[in-house]
Amino acid sequence: MAKTIKEVIEQIRPLDLNAMERAWARHEMLTKPQRSLGVLEELSVKIAGITGNYMPELKEKVIVTMVGDHGVADEGVSAFPREVTSQMVYNFLRGGAAINVLARHIGARVLVVDIGVAADINLEPEPAAGYLPVGDQSCKFIAKKIAYGTANMTKGPAMSYDDARKSIEAGIEVLDNEMKGGSGIDIVGVGDMGIGNTTPSSAIVAFVTGEPVEEVTGRGTGLDDAGLKAKVEVIKSALKVNKLVKEDANANAIEILAKIGGLEIGGMAGVMLAAASNRIPVVIDGFISSTAALIAYELSPEIKDYLIASHLSVESGHLAILDYIGIEPMFNLNMRLGEGTGATVGISIVEASCKILREMATFEDAGVSEKK
Amino acid sequence: MAKTIKEVIEQIRPLDLNAMERAWARHEMLTKPQRSLGVLEELSVKIAGITGNYMPELKEKVIVTMVGDHGVADEGVSAFPREVTSQMVYNFLRGGAAINVLARHIGARVLVVDIGVAADINLEPEPAAGYLPVGDQSCKFIAKKIAYGTANMTKGPAMSYDDARKSIEAGIEVLDNEMKGGSGIDIVGVGDMGIGNTTPSSAIVAFVTGEPVEEVTGRGTGLDDAGLKAKVEVIKSALKVNKLVKEDANANAIEILAKIGGLEIGGMAGVMLAAASNRIPVVIDGFISSTAALIAYELSPEIKDYLIASHLSVESGHLAILDYIGIEPMFNLNMRLGEGTGATVGISIVEASCKILREMATFEDAGVSEKK
Repeated sequence: MAKTIKEVIEQIRPLDLNAMERAWARHEMLTKPQRSLGVLEELSVKIAGITGNYMPELKEKVIVTMVGDHGVADEGVSAFPREVTSQMVYNFLRGGAAINVLARHIGARVLVVDIGVAADINLEPEPAAGYLPVGDQSCKFIAKKIAYGTANMTKGPAMSYDDARKSIEAGIEVLDNEMKGGSGIDIVGVGDMGIGNTTPSSAIVAFVTGEPVEEVTGRGTGLDDAGLKAKVEVIKSALKVNKLVKEDANANAIEILAKIGGLEIGGMAGVMLAAASNRIPVVIDGFISSTAALIAYELSPEIKDYLIASHLSVESGHLAILDYIGIEPMFNLNMRLGEGTGATVGISIVEASCKILREMATFEDAGVSEKK
Repeated sequence: MAKTIKEVIEQIRPLDLNAMERAWARHEMLTKPQRSLGVLEELSVKIAGITGNYMPELKEKVIVTMVGDHGVADEGVSAFPREVTSQMVYNFLRGGAAINVLARHIGARVLVVDIGVAADINLEPEPAAGYLPVGDQSCKFIAKKIAYGTANMTKGPAMSYDDARKSIEAGIEVLDNEMKGGSGIDIVGVGDMGIGNTTPSSAIVAFVTGEPVEEVTGRGTGLDDAGLKAKVEVIKSALKVNKLVKEDANANAIEILAKIGGLEIGGMAGVMLAAASNRIPVVIDGFISSTAALIAYELSPEIKDYLIASHLSVESGHLAILDYIGIEPMFNLNMRLGEGTGATVGISIVEASCKILREMATFEDAGVSEKK
């Protein structure tokens, strides 16, 4: 029996300050000038606080890539056709997508979750391979379809309140099952795939942060100027149709998700909440993943301590989310792909930070003189 | 017989534009929106141009950590005592330093080069271990000592012109020998260790870029305000004593290195020149490593195409160097340790970028629809 959202939120605890203090104390003993590794030191101490272990080890790295379709794609808000969502699922499962390559690079496994793809994913017979040497045994498919995509949010709610709740609970279940089964999870990166999904994300960000729609809407997979302008109008229309204009701004996070969200956004929020409740650090990817973090944060602000922002996306609304939650991105590589790609780079840096804390010699052990 | 600096510089060729064009063409076929991986795409194309291979593979990753002492340390410009330089060499060889941990993390081997340590490095019997599970077979010691540290540059030149030339040639020899011996080098990160070495670096940067000494001088391993002020005066005095004030600004790079440089700075410059002449990409670390890049650049501006800046250091003079050469750092993690630590993070990102180019599926192979 899967946990409810409320049960999960109640299990989220503050950081372990004692572990953090011990981690800082150890950093001072290591053979380097104090604080000379900057963000690497801060990250490792944060992981100590999250895990409760002052010398944490991040062996089991998992990327969860949540996949869903969007009714609003009918409005022409994406440069790519809708069928790309399901086509990319097969690409993930054959190991040919960017997230596969980057997850292999950092030694992470990938869970591809169909939470709302607008087509049946057919695993028998296996999707024809035949292009690249893959052997990507580290990519697993998880069927959690709640609907064949959302409805068009310019005509009414993207989904029912019940489906929005279910999408979050599906994410919780994915994380919890993976925790229990097999080797566990030491750190999770959360990514997305879904043609059209920057549109609901921008809508959510505009409504929650109060920023103008124009400011938080970007080109997604590659809209031109006219396409971008039309996308802004689509979002404004969706906000109006769903009565999410300022004077009605009393919707809770699940209502927001239902009216202008996406199934994969809810799923990612669920993964994040469940990870936090299990003291697992969460590495956010880009814009869509951060929108899910925003939903999770609205449901439970305590999750902030468990979130690590990896890159700053090219999508213009991304910084508004991170500022609203109050977290800083680690780096900016002008990425805007999603899938969890930016999170992989972040996870590798976080893992390195923990190895520093665990593996470096102390001044005493190494016989190195300390600061004068 | 080692190559001369002139011979090496003559072998540095422009980037292979054909390989770069083919790499861009391949990126457009891969299953992602165009340019959606931002800097990762640009890096991979740069590596294609450097190596002449449009699908480059970076298997053999090498960090060269050049170690030298500095006479100017007598002026109290470092927060750590001078003997730390040689103590850290033993720490490197036992695998306990930050660079060992981070090089292991990315699967790189480390070459520790004594080019000017002010003590004999005694390898027999092996430095007593006994603190950490190390087994760090990937760290190799290379003896290239030119002098027991430099002289105090506030009293006269840090070294003779001949020793400055030799330090660069020693770096060339280290890179060339490692290229020939065994498995080769696909990418090299260049780092430093040497108590006091931010002082000659700031002096070089001030002289070459023309920036005021105050602007390009930082706290090194941890000076307080008074220490920083004194360090600025030491640098000004060294520039004056060595007649490197504006009106005499006709010194060539080897003269500059001799008067106000360091042996490890020359050694790193040599490694960079030799790497470029062998079409090997060079990942710069922080401030000292970038000062070496500045010397290499003054000797041969063509090297710019082979340089990849990893992080932006906390040291205030770092950006002045990168701006002068005209390259941009990939990320800023508030690091200031040296040794090559920041370069490891950079190398891992560059390696990831090349895997994207090699391993991702194309739209055609994966049966994914292209942009509308």
